[in-house]
Amino acid sequence: MFERYMVTPEIPFDLNNIDPNFSENFKNKKDVEKEFSKLKEKLCDLQDILYAEGKRRILIVLQGMDTAGKDGTIKHVFKEVHLQGIRVANFKSPTATELAHDFLWRVHKEVPGNGEIVIFNRSHYEDVLITRVHKLIPEKIWIKRYEHIRNFEKLLFDEGTIILKFYLHISKDEQKKRLIERRDNPKKRWKLHKEDIEERKYWNDYINAYNEVIAETSTFYAPWYIIPANKKWFRNYIVAKIIVKKLESLNMKYPDPEPGIENIEIE
Amino acid sequence: MFERYMVTPEIPFDLNNIDPNFSENFKNKKDVEKEFSKLKEKLCDLQDILYAEGKRRILIVLQGMDTAGKDGTIKHVFKEVHLQGIRVANFKSPTATELAHDFLWRVHKEVPGNGEIVIFNRSHYEDVLITRVHKLIPEKIWIKRYEHIRNFEKLLFDEGTIILKFYLHISKDEQKKRLIERRDNPKKRWKLHKEDIEERKYWNDYINAYNEVIAETSTFYAPWYIIPANKKWFRNYIVAKIIVKKLESLNMKYPDPEPGIENIEIE
Repeated sequence: MFERYMVTPEIPFDLNNIDPNFSENFKNKKDVEKEFSKLKEKLCDLQDILYAEGKRRILIVLQGMDTAGKDGTIKHVFKEVHLQGIRVANFKSPTATELAHDFLWRVHKEVPGNGEIVIFNRSHYEDVLITRVHKLIPEKIWIKRYEHIRNFEKLLFDEGTIILKFYLHISKDEQKKRLIERRDNPKKRWKLHKEDIEERKYWNDYINAYNEVIAETSTFYAPWYIIPANKKWFRNYIVAKIIVKKLESLNMKYPDPEPGIENIEIE
Repeated sequence: MFERYMVTPEIPFDLNNIDPNFSENFKNKKDVEKEFSKLKEKLCDLQDILYAEGKRRILIVLQGMDTAGKDGTIKHVFKEVHLQGIRVANFKSPTATELAHDFLWRVHKEVPGNGEIVIFNRSHYEDVLITRVHKLIPEKIWIKRYEHIRNFEKLLFDEGTIILKFYLHISKDEQKKRLIERRDNPKKRWKLHKEDIEERKYWNDYINAYNEVIAETSTFYAPWYIIPANKKWFRNYIVAKIIVKKLESLNMKYPDPEPGIENIEIE
């Protein structure tokens, strides 16, 4: 059902062949509105059980070009979820201390604990993307990182973490539209920097890097999903749907109450 | 306006004299519904500026008896706020490593950074409450902690943190009602433990401890607010209102955009 968005190691994969405008048979926001509301409610209920059960850990990785909608996805998909059990981890430019360690050191500290959902807004994948496109580190270093990422994610998986990785797929034209919106909106202009526009020159380099990274690191234990993201409403809907289906498949349960508690006298 | 809920060092204060059923002139949920919705929207807008500005840090401390509504407050007041800039910190029973340090060590690690809101769901105040009521540490230790807490909060304040502390004030009868609800609801029963009911025997000891703690640590830089909390809708409304008024008083602004960015060409 949502396997169509999953990258499987067996099938050759190229972002250039995936339409960022795709939206199944839905024409506009209205078409998914009702189901999206239901999905958000379900997500809320499932998170309640996840937290109560306290056995599984959910890691959601969001990647995409600038303006692809990482923040918007976080804002809209998780709106109803109880703050108590969910958290966003941001990975900005590494500090001196972080750079003085291996690239997974700062990432490992942020992974979810039992009952927790953690959303990585950007992630360790930047360490094989921006670092490569801008030649910040030599190939002999980053080429080995695919294996380190696979091993790291296998560790998390084997010890109880469910990992879902989303690439939010927009077109270069759509990015242009969004950057112009950002430039022309006084409340959002502060977010725009000249370097964001410079960065567009490397669009194809990023696509090529993503193609390789995603193919190298989409595994059965930590699959990548490519989300057509030109239409924000479809992006939110499909991300919510994939997460809900995954959580439903876990058959989680509220913990058993303390024996005899249902008849206890409360004075 | 909301000074009536604030504990000021000059005025003698006793929880026994504050009515947990108080709800101003409002009779029921309907009476505050509209304004509460507006407050949530405002909180959302203010948090957007807070995050963009990246200069202030907001620390919200929630304390109260078991079932007082700490979780419910978090869930309902912050529902609309963008996950990106807000986080809950829980302080459960300290680990061996945490116990091997001073009582503020694990707390200090969780304080908000620039642009961030952090909610303490329970806090360092447990270290002068439960530890005292159950005689886990000797008086000569906890008696000094009031000063350490004041000094710690003054440090945070002087370096840019706004601190709001809420005591959610319910009656012993209301707690009984809520514990029975918990017992009789299969989705919530797992939360109830025999020790929660045992703990009710210490109700007056806790009230006395809170009276002293709050009087000792309500300062101009980190005031306590006593929130009548028998009526959940009033509790949520008044907590939201106090936070919004505080954030509004900061006169925050979106950062200035990069010079010339409003006319930049985007290819």
